[in-house]
Amino acid sequence: MADVVAKERKILVAIDEGEESAYALSWCLKNIVLENSKDTLVLLYAKPPRAVYTALDGTGYLFSSDIMATMDRYSNEVAECVIEKAKKLCRELNDVKVDMRIEHGDPRDVICQMAEKLGVDMVVMGSHGYGAIKRAFLGSVSNHCAQNVKCPVLIVKTPKSAAVNK
Amino acid sequence: MADVVAKERKILVAIDEGEESAYALSWCLKNIVLENSKDTLVLLYAKPPRAVYTALDGTGYLFSSDIMATMDRYSNEVAECVIEKAKKLCRELNDVKVDMRIEHGDPRDVICQMAEKLGVDMVVMGSHGYGAIKRAFLGSVSNHCAQNVKCPVLIVKTPKSAAVNK
Repeated sequence: MADVVAKERKILVAIDEGEESAYALSWCLKNIVLENSKDTLVLLYAKPPRAVYTALDGTGYLFSSDIMATMDRYSNEVAECVIEKAKKLCRELNDVKVDMRIEHGDPRDVICQMAEKLGVDMVVMGSHGYGAIKRAFLGSVSNHCAQNVKCPVLIVKTPKSAAVNK
Repeated sequence: MADVVAKERKILVAIDEGEESAYALSWCLKNIVLENSKDTLVLLYAKPPRAVYTALDGTGYLFSSDIMATMDRYSNEVAECVIEKAKKLCRELNDVKVDMRIEHGDPRDVICQMAEKLGVDMVVMGSHGYGAIKRAFLGSVSNHCAQNVKCPVLIVKTPKSAAVNK
């Protein structure tokens, strides 16, 4: 298989506002991406639309417009911060080629679709992703992707004592 | 964290009689283990005891002694074959230091316990593991380990068209 012997690998790293994705990215940069390699890191940030929360199941009535508005604001405010944080990590840890992607949709679907569309050799992500709040509604993104992404999936947990930026 | 900056990594690869674990091992040898590195590959083969099957749940009555005996024979017969196949892959693909481990118990528990006990930096495994028959009783080993192993877990699916030994 090409993905096995390829020298120029394309590695998709799913990033979000959670520390787990920042740690997953840093771990990948230090343990997976070869220095001076031709690897390309695709940083994928998925912004789940409101529909993701309301369309989940019969519990939609739980989400008041206040909560929705708060979550939307939160999502928009952190987006730029997350992207900058990720790029900074890449610059600091490894001089790898980075391709930034921002997609709208259920992170579970976005990650699976982009992995397929871009033909990446590997997907790297935190063990949960998308924070405690969203996870409560989305369920475990990593579980879904591990089962549905065709290429190898690396799930990185954040050790309790880990300092993400070290 | 030590596992982030360590130069001498210990990578646990869960192997079984399934092609998925053989592919996972080969993918790991080609994409994760650095050539001429000080990485140590721990090949872990878990042999689930009979108790695993009978103690699962109320469906125990489904397993006749014939089926149990057949599964036990099958398990014992393939063990040596699996280990030799794995060692052969390592010799062929990468001159990495290999540490062979055979443990008895529910593969899900054995993999999580050994990862912890050996303090490995990473666990690599096929997306299911333990074959169609055992998987029906054990459930997905990779799902369980991805959720319970503390270190990063790489889940490798076998592409439909992949030839494991190429």
